[in-house]
Amino acid sequence: MNEATFLQELKELDMLQQTLAILEWDSQTGMPEEGSEYRGETTGYLAGLYFEKKIGATIKEAITYFEDKPEELTEVGQVALGLVKEEYELNHAVPNELMVAYSAATSKAHGAWQKARKENDYAYFKEALAENIRLTKELIPYWKKDESTNYDVLLNQYEPGMTTAKLDQVFSELRTGIMTILEKLATEGTEPVTDFLNRHMSKAQQKRFITKVVADLGYDFSRGRLDDTIHPFATGINHRDVRITTRWNENDFMMAVFGIIHEAGHGMYEQNIDEKYEYTPAHEGASMGIHESQSLFNEIIVGSNRAFWEKQYPFFQECAEGTFADISFEDFYRSLKKSQASLVRIEADSLTYPLHIIIRYEIEKLIFDGEVSIDDLPTLWNDKYEEYLGIRPEDDLTGILQDVHWSGSSFGYFPSYALGYMYAAQLYHAMGKELAIDEILASDDYSPIKRWSTEHIHQYGASRKPNQLIMDATGEALNPKYLLDYMEKIYFDVYQVKN
Amino acid sequence: MNEATFLQELKELDMLQQTLAILEWDSQTGMPEEGSEYRGETTGYLAGLYFEKKIGATIKEAITYFEDKPEELTEVGQVALGLVKEEYELNHAVPNELMVAYSAATSKAHGAWQKARKENDYAYFKEALAENIRLTKELIPYWKKDESTNYDVLLNQYEPGMTTAKLDQVFSELRTGIMTILEKLATEGTEPVTDFLNRHMSKAQQKRFITKVVADLGYDFSRGRLDDTIHPFATGINHRDVRITTRWNENDFMMAVFGIIHEAGHGMYEQNIDEKYEYTPAHEGASMGIHESQSLFNEIIVGSNRAFWEKQYPFFQECAEGTFADISFEDFYRSLKKSQASLVRIEADSLTYPLHIIIRYEIEKLIFDGEVSIDDLPTLWNDKYEEYLGIRPEDDLTGILQDVHWSGSSFGYFPSYALGYMYAAQLYHAMGKELAIDEILASDDYSPIKRWSTEHIHQYGASRKPNQLIMDATGEALNPKYLLDYMEKIYFDVYQVKN
Repeated sequence: MNEATFLQELKELDMLQQTLAILEWDSQTGMPEEGSEYRGETTGYLAGLYFEKKIGATIKEAITYFEDKPEELTEVGQVALGLVKEEYELNHAVPNELMVAYSAATSKAHGAWQKARKENDYAYFKEALAENIRLTKELIPYWKKDESTNYDVLLNQYEPGMTTAKLDQVFSELRTGIMTILEKLATEGTEPVTDFLNRHMSKAQQKRFITKVVADLGYDFSRGRLDDTIHPFATGINHRDVRITTRWNENDFMMAVFGIIHEAGHGMYEQNIDEKYEYTPAHEGASMGIHESQSLFNEIIVGSNRAFWEKQYPFFQECAEGTFADISFEDFYRSLKKSQASLVRIEADSLTYPLHIIIRYEIEKLIFDGEVSIDDLPTLWNDKYEEYLGIRPEDDLTGILQDVHWSGSSFGYFPSYALGYMYAAQLYHAMGKELAIDEILASDDYSPIKRWSTEHIHQYGASRKPNQLIMDATGEALNPKYLLDYMEKIYFDVYQVKN
Repeated sequence: MNEATFLQELKELDMLQQTLAILEWDSQTGMPEEGSEYRGETTGYLAGLYFEKKIGATIKEAITYFEDKPEELTEVGQVALGLVKEEYELNHAVPNELMVAYSAATSKAHGAWQKARKENDYAYFKEALAENIRLTKELIPYWKKDESTNYDVLLNQYEPGMTTAKLDQVFSELRTGIMTILEKLATEGTEPVTDFLNRHMSKAQQKRFITKVVADLGYDFSRGRLDDTIHPFATGINHRDVRITTRWNENDFMMAVFGIIHEAGHGMYEQNIDEKYEYTPAHEGASMGIHESQSLFNEIIVGSNRAFWEKQYPFFQECAEGTFADISFEDFYRSLKKSQASLVRIEADSLTYPLHIIIRYEIEKLIFDGEVSIDDLPTLWNDKYEEYLGIRPEDDLTGILQDVHWSGSSFGYFPSYALGYMYAAQLYHAMGKELAIDEILASDDYSPIKRWSTEHIHQYGASRKPNQLIMDATGEALNPKYLLDYMEKIYFDVYQVKN
């Protein structure tokens, strides 16, 4: 065994992953629907090759050999070995039958979820969900390292180092803070006018505007591309091919404008990981939470900035070719930040969004570390919406059936969204100590912002853990205070609340 | 060994091929150019897996085992085994070093060809071409079965069963016939007016027209899609995902209109191979020549048909939104079929096109079975253009450097184009005995034409050889007479020559 052999094996694994990523991108953007069965077969075959290789002889040998001789590896080799070991230890002990059953169950559950949505009836999903939960509970002992609760094991799969102890505290603070802001907006605030937001703006007009904006923010189209899809995503095929996707609504420009700026944040992250990590597992995001911090930095921090919009509004008006000619900048800007409780997470505004996450977090905790019957979940869900958001779902579709995650057994994933949002605000605060962000966003040159993010986050890829990245970049551990400060600043301004 | 194991191995090979096809399609339609180096690595790796497997233990074992026990195979298994054996016998004896040298040489030659084109100087390509020829000559003994000449071995790679003896006779007849028609047009014909052909027609206008036309002809968009590219092609990923591509010129609608109708012909072939052959080497075209017969049937036979255009012209005018309002149908139709000698094969009209192929065929024969110095090729090329087409290239770019084929050692490929054209005319003649083609093309329902082609050609895929397909479909072997009759009919009509 030597480093070259080890790195070559990782390169081959990575090339299989790149291939799977292209096949996935293609199936979401262009593949004729009729081809999906054939595509499923091919993807299954290649994924099989990938997983076999991932726990194959070469990887095992490398782990054993370099355990005692880390000095024979370069920095990149050492980082890669660490990640490979983590991954290997997570999965190698899992009995093959269990893995197969788990995979079959999620696939079945996805179908059941779709059926349940179609019928608007949780009953069609219930049993498949119960099976997903049962199998996940069976897997937890194999995945467990030193976590203290079952749910911590799940959290760790998406956000290494995160615990329920930490999240309980952070989410409690966040929830109280948001409720206080909401209360203040309701009693002292002036609601923005939004009736012009649904004016028609063609796809071409929207595209002209937002592609220039994200290019200015630093998304490199020479190493990327933008396509249409149903469920938008970003995918880093490799260092020089990082694609984003969107959907368009000509009567709601906010969908694509904020969608693309969001995906471009993911894209900029992947485009700016140090290329030396390419072909190793370090050439990806540090975690779901950190990845989301970069997309939400773009979408919410930049996308809510008054100076940014003041600068962009004339260009936006130009692209809209007169449609918003009668709307003052002040009215336009305020309309973007209206807060209104919604039943559906992906339609939530940036103030109430974390409440949706906290509801899911609390239910997942109950499922894995508490006591709850599968039959009671819809009522539990609806009760929490009523308690936290003041509105109650009237059916399962706008209630418990809205998210795809549980059908795929992605338990523990939801908190990443809120973590990403808190990270984004904390990074914004730290960035603000070094850069005059408002001035930059009022100028023609946004590059210092991307440079700061690349220097503190992007370049490291997965070579550092989320908590270390946040500590190094901001000087402290995760702190929800920055998000609350930020929300107050934005929403009190928009709602004209005197603080 | 049993049939299921054999077919599973073929399925895995096919899935690797499907993957490579998607990667290739992607790199020609959407991939950011910056990503090409990474893509090259991934493609190389997967192609390596594919070729190893193709001559791997399972395939070898299947060939040996079923040699004596063909009765253990179903019809599909038997057909697949035959094709696998052919392929295996072609390649297994070739020394690995020779294959590596061959592959490296073509890769180098492609670069040299591009450089030579840039410099418009054959000198930059000469040595690489000589090396391609030398290595091909070294390979011929390994590839040889029972062919009588070197060049026959090469022809057989693209058109199984074809020989120089046959082609010499067919091409001689074709050449004489075309020269006679050309002579008659020059002396007795009235040239069509074409000055309106370059009127501006937007991509959207062209697209509206031609996508309806090819859908009506039978290209199934629910199992396909149309994308933009630089060098148009069709690719059958699998039975339910067959894609076509095009480029557009808003000042020359003929490029995309005839380009798409051509690629749709390839696409219809792939879409209509019997699905029972999927995942085996029988689920592809019978040969390059047969494939080209289907694309040229669409492009030239249908695309030159008076009744077809008479029916389509009002819709074409509607799509062009008034641009051709002042052009009578007669003038429009005649303009499409102007014949004019050109130096460049891909710009040739449908009358002189075969002469371009015959020139290349004669030169290739000289290279592999005669005597010719590598230095003399450009002069030889130019002399033949002067002799056959009456025009002489003034530089290498419009002469010997125009085609990519020799840089890739694709010697023996060119005749496929002319074979496809002759097959198309012969199939048209046979079809005409059963169907009232003009009436069908004047109607709203083109489906009988596709049905005939599917019944006689498409469905069989590669399960039958070209000569058998042509014999079964038309009742005789390849006969150039039908193409000459067809050319006379079309061109004498357009040039108003009394026969």
